Order: sequence, then C-alpha cells, then structure tokens
Amino acid sequence: PVTVNLSSCFLQGILERLDAGEIVIGDGGFVFALEKRGYVKAGPWTPEATVEHPEAVRQLHREFLRAGSNVLQTFTFYASEDKLENRGNYVAEKISCQKVNEAACDIAREVANEGDALVAGGVSQTPSYLSCKDKTEVKAAFRKQLDVFMKKNVDFLIAEYFEHVEEAVWAVEVLKESGKPVAATMCIGPEGDMHGVPPGQCAVQLVKAGASIVGVNCHFDPDTSLETVKLMKEGLQGAKLKAHLMSQPLAFHTPDCGKQGFIDLPEFPFGLEPRIVTRWDIQKYARKAYELGIRYIGGCCGFEPYHVRAIAEELAPERGLLPEASEKHGSWGDSLSMHTKPWVRARARKEYWENLKPASGRPYCPSMSKPDGWGVTKGARELMQQKEATSEQQLKELFQKQKF
Amino acid sequence: PVTVNLSSCFLQGILERLDAGEIVIGDGGFVFALEKRGYVKAGPWTPEATVEHPEAVRQLHREFLRAGSNVLQTFTFYASEDKLENRGNYVAEKISCQKVNEAACDIAREVANEGDALVAGGVSQTPSYLSCKDKTEVKAAFRKQLDVFMKKNVDFLIAEYFEHVEEAVWAVEVLKESGKPVAATMCIGPEGDMHGVPPGQCAVQLVKAGASIVGVNCHFDPDTSLETVKLMKEGLQGAKLKAHLMSQPLAFHTPDCGKQGFIDLPEFPFGLEPRIVTRWDIQKYARKAYELGIRYIGGCCGFEPYHVRAIAEELAPERGLLPEASEKHGSWGDSLSMHTKPWVRARARKEYWENLKPASGRPYCPSMSKPDGWGVTKGARELMQQKEATSEQQLKELFQKQKF
Amino acid sequence: PVTVNLSSCFLQGILERLDAGEIVIGDGGFVFALEKRGYVKAGPWTPEATVEHPEAVRQLHREFLRAGSNVLQTFTFYASEDKLENRGNYVAEKISCQKVNEAACDIAREVANEGDALVAGGVSQTPSYLSCKDKTEVKAAFRKQLDVFMKKNVDFLIAEYFEHVEEAVWAVEVLKESGKPVAATMCIGPEGDMHGVPPGQCAVQLVKAGASIVGVNCHFDPDTSLETVKLMKEGLQGAKLKAHLMSQPLAFHTPDCGKQGFIDLPEFPFGLEPRIVTRWDIQKYARKAYELGIRYIGGCCGFEPYHVRAIAEELAPERGLLPEASEKHGSWGDSLSMHTKPWVRARARKEYWENLKPASGRPYCPSMSKPDGWGVTKGARELMQQKEATSEQQLKELFQKQKF
Amino acid sequence: PVTVNLSSCFLQGILERLDAGEIVIGDGGFVFALEKRGYVKAGPWTPEATVEHPEAVRQLHREFLRAGSNVLQTFTFYASEDKLENRGNYVAEKISCQKVNEAACDIAREVANEGDALVAGGVSQTPSYLSCKDKTEVKAAFRKQLDVFMKKNVDFLIAEYFEHVEEAVWAVEVLKESGKPVAATMCIGPEGDMHGVPPGQCAVQLVKAGASIVGVNCHFDPDTSLETVKLMKEGLQGAKLKAHLMSQPLAFHTPDCGKQGFIDLPEFPFGLEPRIVTRWDIQKYARKAYELGIRYIGGCCGFEPYHVRAIAEELAPERGLLPEASEKHGSWGDSLSMHTKPWVRARARKEYWENLKPASGRPYCPSMSKPDGWGVTKGARELMQQKEATSEQQLKELFQKQKF
Repeated sequence: PVTVNLSSCFLQGILERLDAGEIVIGDGGFVFALEKRGYVKAGPWTPEATVEHPEAVRQLHREFLRAGSNVLQTFTFYASEDKLENRGNYVAEKISCQKVNEAACDIAREVANEGDALVAGGVSQTPSYLSCKDKTEVKAAFRKQLDVFMKKNVDFLIAEYFEHVEEAVWAVEVLKESGKPVAATMCIGPEGDMHGVPPGQCAVQLVKAGASIVGVNCHFDPDTSLETVKLMKEGLQGAKLKAHLMSQPLAFHTPDCGKQGFIDLPEFPFGLEPRIVTRWDIQKYARKAYELGIRYIGGCCGFEPYHVRAIAEELAPERGLLPEASEKHGSWGDSLSMHTKPWVRARARKEYWENLKPASGRPYCPSMSKPDGWGVTKGARELMQQKEATSEQQLKELFQKQKF
Repeated sequence: PVTVNLSSCFLQGILERLDAGEIVIGDGGFVFALEKRGYVKAGPWTPEATVEHPEAVRQLHREFLRAGSNVLQTFTFYASEDKLENRGNYVAEKISCQKVNEAACDIAREVANEGDALVAGGVSQTPSYLSCKDKTEVKAAFRKQLDVFMKKNVDFLIAEYFEHVEEAVWAVEVLKESGKPVAATMCIGPEGDMHGVPPGQCAVQLVKAGASIVGVNCHFDPDTSLETVKLMKEGLQGAKLKAHLMSQPLAFHTPDCGKQGFIDLPEFPFGLEPRIVTRWDIQKYARKAYELGIRYIGGCCGFEPYHVRAIAEELAPERGLLPEASEKHGSWGDSLSMHTKPWVRARARKEYWENLKPASGRPYCPSMSKPDGWGVTKGARELMQQKEATSEQQLKELFQKQKF
Repeated sequence: PVTVNLSSCFLQGILERLDAGEIVIGDGGFVFALEKRGYVKAGPWTPEATVEHPEAVRQLHREFLRAGSNVLQTFTFYASEDKLENRGNYVAEKISCQKVNEAACDIAREVANEGDALVAGGVSQTPSYLSCKDKTEVKAAFRKQLDVFMKKNVDFLIAEYFEHVEEAVWAVEVLKESGKPVAATMCIGPEGDMHGVPPGQCAVQLVKAGASIVGVNCHFDPDTSLETVKLMKEGLQGAKLKAHLMSQPLAFHTPDCGKQGFIDLPEFPFGLEPRIVTRWDIQKYARKAYELGIRYIGGCCGFEPYHVRAIAEELAPERGLLPEASEKHGSWGDSLSMHTKPWVRARARKEYWENLKPASGRPYCPSMSKPDGWGVTKGARELMQQKEATSEQQLKELFQKQKF
Repeated sequence: PVTVNLSSCFLQGILERLDAGEIVIGDGGFVFALEKRGYVKAGPWTPEATVEHPEAVRQLHREFLRAGSNVLQTFTFYASEDKLENRGNYVAEKISCQKVNEAACDIAREVANEGDALVAGGVSQTPSYLSCKDKTEVKAAFRKQLDVFMKKNVDFLIAEYFEHVEEAVWAVEVLKESGKPVAATMCIGPEGDMHGVPPGQCAVQLVKAGASIVGVNCHFDPDTSLETVKLMKEGLQGAKLKAHLMSQPLAFHTPDCGKQGFIDLPEFPFGLEPRIVTRWDIQKYARKAYELGIRYIGGCCGFEPYHVRAIAEELAPERGLLPEASEKHGSWGDSLSMHTKPWVRARARKEYWENLKPASGRPYCPSMSKPDGWGVTKGARELMQQKEATSEQQLKELFQKQKF
C-alpha cells in the first residue's frame, strides 16, 4: 500500500512539540508483548513478525495509539543485518533485513495515520560492536537501516538500547546524517555504561554527537531509570548543554538488579510475572518523570497498552486530554463504583489503589533475587569484559570449564 | 460476511473428540486480556468490543488459535440482555444485545475456519437470577442468546461462570433444547456453590440436567480449581454418572482466597499483577489436570496466548503435535541456548525453570492477602446471602451504615 | 537443702484454683531457652543441666515466676531413664536419671517458694514406646520418675509431649496412682495423633484415664494449637465429660506445618528465628485462649519470660493483678512515651503494635516453607509409621537407600 | 565482696592480646537480653538491675563467658547521672548513679574471675550532649563514671554508642586521663555520624584523641556494620594511623535502615523478632569480620549467648580452642546426627544450614519496612538536627502540630 506521511503535512514534528513544552507519550516494548502473543522468540528477540504476521504487529501499534502514544516506533529492534543473520536459524524461511525494516515502517505509518502519532525509526546495539568490529563496519550496519528509514520517510530517529556510549555515539553520528531529529537512549542504570562511563557523561557525549533528546530505555524499573535520567540531567547542566529528556523503562520491578540490569536476574525472561508493575505504579512513575522535567515519557519491555494509558491518564490534567482507550477505564478504579459487592465498590477510589501493597500469592517465593553471573569465574568475566571472549565458541569453552 | 462452519463438514465435534480420548485445549479469558489492551471496561466486563472493535477481538482469537486452542468461545460473556442494559451507561452508543452476540459468533467462526477449531457459544450467570427473578424470566434470557447461537450455528454450547448450581441447571436445560452438546462450568471452589451445595453434588445436578462436560472456570487458581474438579469427579463416580471433565482456571495465584474467589481479594481487579502465573506454572497445571483425567483443559481470566501455548507444549507428547506458536518458543527455555552470557545460557534447561521460585521485586509487599468483606457486618452479609438485599439501593444503605 | 512445700501449707492446689474459675499461667519451654543460653544440647534435648548448672536452671525458673507463672514445671523433659541412657554420650560424665530428676524438683521448689507458684512434675514420651516396647516396660519408666516426684512431694503432675494417645493414657494411668491431680497434653495438631486418633477422641480417652486437665503443648503455633484444643473441647462435650482445658503452644509461627509439626519444617531447630512470635502475638493468643474457655494458659518451646509476661498482662483485668516483671514493662509500648524522637513516641499506643505487620528484613527468604520428609520414599515412611523401622540401624539403612 | 582483679596479676591486657594478633571476642547486648528476661525497661533502657537484681545480671555475664567472651563489659549503659535522673521515674526507689556503676563493676569482675576474661568499663552518649550542654558539663558526666571504674580497677575502657563523633572524642579524652587502654565505637552506618562526618574521618578523630581500638556498635546489622568499619579502616590507612578494629553490631537484619539505624524502623523495639539473626548468620559475620582485619569481634542488642558462641565456633580454627558452651553444641548442626527422623538427620551438615533461607511463617508480613520519621515535617526534622528542638517540650509541641 502507498503510505502517506500525514505528519509531514500538518502535524508538528517531535522537536516542535517538545520545544513547545508538550508532553510526548512513547509506546511500549514490542518484543515482550509479541512474545506473549506468540510472534517473537525470546532469546533472539528479532522482529521478523513484521513480514510473517503484519496483522499482529499492526494490532499492537493500534492498541498503543489508542492508549495515548504520540510516537509509534517502527518494530525494527535488533533488525540490523548482522543480528538477523546471526539468528537466521530461528526464522522459518530466510527474510531479508531490508524487507523486515521496510514492512516495519509501512505498518507503523499505516497506524500512525489513523491518529495523531509520529513514526520513529529505531536502531539498537549490534553484534558487530560486541565482537569488536571497527567503527566503519558498525556504522555501515546502522547506515543500512537508515537507508530504509529515509526511503520510508519516518518522522524522526531513535538510537536506543545501547550498553556502551561509544557505540551509541556512532549510531547518533550516522542517524544525524539524515538531517532528521535524533533521540538517543541507553539501557544503563545509575552506575553507567559497561565501560564505566557515568550517566552524566554519556548524556554529554550523546548531545555533543547530535542527539536532541537523551535518556534511558529498558534494563531497569521505572524508579531506577528515573534515577539514571536525573544523573544525565545533572551531567548536561554541568556541561551547560541543552537537550530534552526521555525515559522508557521496564514495566517490571527490579530493585535487586546489578549493573547489567534485568537480564542477570534469575527470572529473566520466563519468570518475570510477579515483577510486573501495576497501572498505579505507572501513574506514580509518570508523575515523578514529569516532575523531574522529562517530557518524552514511554516504556519498554513489559509495557502493555494499559500501562501507556496510565501515563496518559496521570498526565491528563497537564495535557488537557484523555486517550481514546480511557472510554474503557475509569479514573483510579471508579468503574467499580456500581459493583454488586459493597466491599468491591469500596475500591473505587484513589486512596485505595494508591496505598495498596499487592500480595503475590506466592508464599514460597522470596521478594528479592540475587543477580546471576557469579557462577562464572572472575577470569572468565574479565575476559568477557575485555571482549576477547565474545565469540560464541570461546565463551562456550570458558563456560564449560566452570562447574556451574 | 457469510460464514461457513467448516467443522460441521469434515471436523469432528467436541464429543467425538473427547469420546475418542483426545485432549481438547480451551482458550483464555477475553475480558481480562482485552481490558489490558484497552477494549473492555473492568467492572461491567461486557463484550461490546465485538461490535466496536472487531479487529481487536479477531486478533485475540487468532492468537489463541495459534497457541493451540481447539475451541474458540464466542466473546459473549455477560452478553445477556439484562446485563448489557444494566451496564448501558458504559457503552458509548446503545448497541443491541443481539448485535453483540451475532458479531461474536461471526468473528469466532471466521478465525476458527483459519484452523482446526470448534466454536462454542457461551452463556453465563445473569443479573436476573441474582435479583431473584423467577425461573421463566432467567430461562428467557438464556434463550435469547441461544437463538443467536442457533442462527449462527455454533458447534456446541457452554454454560459457564455460575456461582449457583440452580441457575446453572436452568442454563443447561435451555441450552439442551438446541440438541447440541452442552458443557457446564461453575466458578466455585472446593467449598461449593454460594448456597452451600458441594462440588460433587453440583456436578451430579449438571449432568442430570443434560451436560456432557462439567467442571469449573474462573475465580480460583489452577491448583484450587483442580481440587474442585477432583471433588466433582468423585461426586459423579459416587452417583455412577459419566461425563467429561473440564477446567478453565484463573492465571493468578490465589492460595489466600475465601469461598467467593479472587473478587474478594483486595488486589482485584487492578493490582493482580504479582499473582500472574508463569508458563511453567501452567505446564505443571496441564500435567496435573491430565493426570486427574481432565481432557478439556483451558483457562479463564489472566490466561494470555502464551499460557495456552504452555498447555499445548506440556501435552505435546500425548497429543503428538505442537501448536503453530511454538515456532517462536523453545521447549523449557531452550531458545536461550545461544545467549551471549553464559549464565543466561545456563537457564536453557527444564530443571532451571521447573525449580525457580520467582521473586516479586516487591520487598514492601506481603505474599498473602486477607480477603475483603469483613468490613461488612455479619447481619448485612447474611442478608446478602439470603438475597434479600441484592438491590443496589438496599446494599448501598446497608453498607453506608457500616463504618468501613 | 531441705525444701518445704509452702503450697501444701497454705496455697491452693491446681484444681482448687481452676475449679474456682481462676486463670492459671504456665511457664515457658526450658530446652529451647537453655539451648540459647548454652546449657542444653539440641538434638538430645535432655535436662542434665539441673545437675551440671543448677544456677542457670534456677535463674530461668525465677524469670518465669517473675513474669507471672503460677506453675513451675520441674525441668525433667526427656528425663526418663531410657532416654538419658540413649543420649548418654552427650553428657560429659554419667549422671543418673534419678539425680537429674531430684535436682529438678529441688530447684523448682526453691524458686516456687520465692513466690506463689505450684510445682508440677512432668513426664513425656519415651524411646521405649517408640521402639515398640510393651505397656509394662513403658509404664515402668514413668513410674521411676513418679517415685522421685512423690519423694519430693510435687504439687501435681503433667504428662506432656505425647504424639500417641495410647502412650499418653499409659502415662496418666501411672501418674494417677499417686493420688495427685494429673494434667495431660499432647503435641498434636488438628489432624490428631500419629495413629490418626482425632483430638476430640484423644481428650476423651485422657479424661477417662484420669486426667483432670487436658490440652496440647509444643509442635504448633498458638493459633493452630487453639484450633486443636477447640476440637478437644468439642470431643469432651460430645462425650458429656468435664475437664479443664490447657494450652502450651510454641512461640513460633508455623502456618506451614504438616501433621508432625515444626520438627519437619526445614528451619528446625537452628533457623527458626524469623518465626519467633512477638509479645503482641502472645497477647492475642492469651485473649483467644481465654475466650475459648481455656484456663491453664502457658507456653512451650520458644517461650521466653517476656512471652509469659504478655499472657499475664493481657489477662490482668480478669486476674486483677500484674506480674512483678511488669514494673519493667509499659502496657502496649507506653514506656516509649518519653522517647526523644516523636515518631518513636508515636509507637506508645495499642493500635500501633496491634496492627503492625513486622518485616523480617530478609528479602531473599520466602514467607513459607515446605515441610521435609518427602525425600524419603513412601515405603520407608509407611514402615516408620508401622514402627517396624524405628531402630536406628533400620532407619539408617532405609534412608541411605534413598537419594536425598 | 572484695574483688580481686586476676587479670592484672597474670592475664594479658587487651592491647597485649590484640598486638599479639589474638582474636578477642566481645559479649552481647545487655539491655535487650535483660528486657526479655524482665529486668530492663524498654524506652529508658537503664541498668538499675545491677542493684535491683544482681543475680540476673551475673547469670547473663556467666552465659557470655561460657559462650566464649574474652571481655565482660560492665553493665553501665546509659548509667550517666543525667540519664539516670532523667529516667528516675521508671526506677522504683531512687538508686544513685554511683551505686549502679559500682555494682556493675563488682558483678562483672566476680564473673570474669571465674574464667579468662577482662573487664571493660563503658560510657555512652549523654542527654547533656543531646540537649546542647557544653564540653565541660558533658566531660564531667563521663568523669563521674570513670571515677568508679578507677576505684574498681577495670582492665580497660570503652566509649560506645555515640551518634556524634564530637561527643565520642570528648569521652575518649576523659577516659584517656586514666592511663588505661581506650576503645571507641560509634553507633553509625556507612553514611557517617549525625552531623555528617564520614566513618573514615570519625575513626581518624577518635584515634587522634587517644583511642587504641575503634569501630562500631549497635544500630545496624552485621553486614552494614562491617561496611562501616571498612570505611573506618580506609580512613585510618589514608591518614597513616594505626589502631585495632572492633565491631559489635545488632543481631537483627536491618537492610532497610536509614541513616539513624534500627530505632527508626517501625518494628523497634517490640516487633523485631522476625529480624533476629541465626547462629549461621553470625558465623558468616565472624568470618567476614576476621577477613576484614577486625580482631575485636562481639555484638550488641539482640546478641544472645548462642550468638557469641557462634563467633567463637567459627573462629575456633584460628583461635585453637572452643568455648565451654560448645559442649552443648555440635558444629554446624551435627548434634542432629542421631535424630530418629532421617530427614532431620539430613540437616546435620554445614551445607544445609549455610544455604537455608529461613521462612518467617508470616505470609501477611512484608520482608522490608520503610523507616519512620517521615510523618514529621521537614522543618521539624531540620530543627531537631540543629539541636534547637531537643527539649522534650519543644519537640512535643512541634510534633503535636503535625498530623501523624
């Protein structure tokens, strides 16, 4: 289908909106949501569903739009050529990287046109960088995806899910070649990137490289993520740099994460259910993010449409509007006010949900976990950190030497 | 669109399948899944989305089909005329009961024809019964829905979500008029129905009324539900009656429920996240259900497509096939076997997930809750049990007299 | 030292007190308290400290007396000859059974005379019974201890800590030969004794054998124990028998116990700390026990002097007096009312402590455990229940055959 | 009684022992232990029991000695004149400060002479300092206690439980006047003292004032306390100062404490039971303390004799001896090796207890608490920190203005 970019005709772009002080609501994480719906494989986490099952991707975009998202990100996570090839064995029939990226753009635009949303093309960290390929090679991978985004004329670009600021800077540099606005978010916590660069310094480097919007996504829960963005904000202030702030955290509670985030938690990725945040947790997050000066507020893995709606509902007074999906949701539980049981009706109030400490119904489970990674000898971990051991084979051998 | 019932041409019906010893996999709960997606309102829980947003309903059916469901239930929960009218204020423009039910049938059939699934038309408990209307009136409500199911030629019928066996029996009697097979499930726990009829006796009454399949759905977690079905099985054996067994529990852990199930838990319905069961919990449930002799195994509120897939994967050896959605899922986490981190790769095995006790990441929350309802005086509760106080007004007054 | 029994001169005996409707407060568990103080060995749990360290035993008696105990039990738990011999290897130099029992009587009497307390001589279950010795032999063991109690002229007798009502009845029969009042408590829960005799029936048999006071001690927490005594009470009512009721539960929370009580919990006996009940838990227990009609209210393992004081304080209105130790304790925390921090002062009120849900500070620990014993094959467990495998050697062999 | 200081004749002093590389084991907290036994009042926490109930104090000393303590601290906590007067209303008949301190010395010496222990006289923070009295006045209070310690010829002196390093330095200066060795411990965490002086700097100031041994006591759990001592050690190294290190933490888990320690936890002081550490926790603490270079290892509030024994047992290989109380304790649970139940016998091994995560049996309680103090307005808190509001009356008024 021929897709027309309505936003380029009469809607304002991302920077116009943010510069005007508007709140921009992001969307939620596609790989986790579609994994539960049966279209994405955990482990590879690649987005071939854009070609294999476009109707499923389209429906999820629609739900986020309806929930209040102002930006629809193309479902191009891990869609760099090196990644898709790496994981080729998981895809039934070989689908080209270009096809996946193009389909992602078409679907996002189709749904964006059903409302008032922008389309953002996204790139994320590459296997090439992790296996120590050089700057030229890594940049080439980003440029391939960018070619598609330009052809499909996305509204702006996001470099997201980077663990190393060095690679993120390379991504921003490539994306800036397009002339379109660039946002950049790293999947780091308050301790900084994997080479030890603190969040404030990461932000400074990203803005200097050309990012107009900086922040974090994934790997940590809302509270921890806001802490990290706060450090970024302070870093920018210290360097007298200006940029918009952005946060797209997990919808999982992760107070027990180590530096590398939720991937090291023993529950990742198939036992995270008890950590899922409630809509009320999200309302608190949205308020706190807003008070911190963040104006691009969205989510990542674990965010379902109702979580995005919770952002939109919390900030409805500031934004002056409710999302469409609120027609099926009462504020702070007031849709319970007609329940036949008086004690359920008594839950139709803000104080109730705001103060509830939800039980897990799991009396044999602890409340906190210890992150993994300690079974591996210090030597092996150091090697990995030096990136001398990132070939699958090397790691496998190292690992097999350990008694796990 | 003209819908053709493929199953009536060459597929076997529900009883042929069960009589032949096949395992039949049900689907999951629509109201909870669509509430999170933004199409159903918590509180009324009515299915007007079949008319308002058929694409959303269609997509959910497709996901369950792909996950392995052999039965697609029409999304007609709480779609009796009295209920829809009651809750009319929640529906933007007045949509007729008939339209909702017809659309539900059409969508279910359309998706069922994409695979090998049967369509089941469903009725559930009515406000009329709860407000003490007589048998004639209640039966008339069921008959109205049945008319649509007959016109749309569903494959079989389910009377589900009944708290009182008396009303369930009335429903079965009406549905049996159609000549189609009838399944009947109650939303009760081991303590029996709201009038104190024990599960075994409920099962006996339902089979005597004409149900070929009996069991439970909703209100309790898998473990508790299986306990209840076990009591039903023993009741039928004691009465020397034969019927197929069925279970469609919650996908929430509810060890702390009282007699009336999860509705009385303080977390219902907006704080249940930490209770969501994992796919591994479901595999245990499926195995246990199978060992108990249950052959119609599905889910209710909280069940997402990946939970249904977990039933299908656990019983794949017995059924000789995997569902389509398993192309995006490795058995017991084996899609992690190529992860770059050795300690994540170490999670690619059955023992790991089978034994994991997932943490909630919520150290300020308890593991168990006390069910609500105690704020109401004993007198009020007794009145309610006698159904003398079920008018909204009466209850409201009673409730207001209590200090809550 | 020559000990004079003051109570026989001018104090009322146990039955006079109970018959008059008085509340009698028991003491706490000696083996656990003295294990923590360094005088009793966990495992054997024998009372040779009466000879080895009389000052430690004396001090503990004094603390209980000061906390409000009306009865001081001789520290003769597991002091039957067969038991002491069995465990002889734990005792530095061989101390005769008689010496241990005599010293226990002397110390208890010495302290009892410092106040208004009765001395009760106690016998408990024997290895002889567990290894299937006959009635004559088992009774002979009790008689040996009784000889000492008669010589030392205790005020009354308690048969306590019996898992089998059969052995408890034999004990009561022997103790009744003395002419003194006899109390009998079993260490069972609501499921009854180890041969499956329900609590109500146990109570009936004990009263018929001559016990004037019946109830439970040890193995379960206060709530569970009161449930058991309630069943005993109902059993007696059904049989139209009269007896006084008694409860001496654990001071540990054990909602997760199986039939055999806290010994099977994985935390027994060296990891029970997080289960220790607070003084406020005990006040609730004392009130509930009183309301149930129990008039002999004390404790067992885990009970420290401050727990006994909590019983005395809760029932001070009914008894018309506070224990001596209350001079160092404000009612419901009111000794905090002068604290320098306002938020600590705010804890000086009943509502605060009554409603506090204390955190464990252990976020890596679950709230419930699964009792042990399942690692042993069903065959081995059956054998043990049949008591055909109780010789150490047999059990060891059986156990070694299992992979644990 | 005339008490002779055996240690001054032929035993080595504290510094000789530490300088020789010996491990010195401290004792446990008296106020908490004696509160549970009925001799100390929570709130005032004063030690008048030395006069009122010397037998109870003597017995506790004996239990610590038997458990392995090499130092018996005189029970003179909060025994400064201003404190005892402040709390005079709690003491039945007026007992002079001097009498309390003298009795404490006599009892400690009497028991120390039964074994190989030193007697340490202790002073702690004063109300005078907290209510802004000047240096002269505060020092005078310490000097009064010191006079008694000199008269009774204690072996060395401890300034402990100081929240402000300024006051601790004053105490050390006074104690140094005696010529005896001085140890100084503060009740602070890693965040430093109440005026914001970091632990490293506190240590430096204390050593410069004359302390030969520095460290922490009370307010935080073993792990947190060791973190603080580590910071002290680093501070001393940075300043090129030498001193012995000492730790006497709580026997409660307090991962959720704020800066002011366990007093702000909502469970303080009457709901701390679920936080009590096990003997195995203590063995880990002792090992970790030793590895950190700490050689004076003891405990504070919550430490019972069996906790001290656990220190002595863990470090038995290094010390070459077991304490007397180990005759009633098997290493790592091996006293269970003869238990009649095979699954209990299976607990008689180190791996079992080392890895056990004990359940609390409290499924309605969370695992973590939020410290109190937030109910008080920021203004009030600031005032208090400025010590302008420490008069009881002022605080009361400020507090009453808040809605709590």
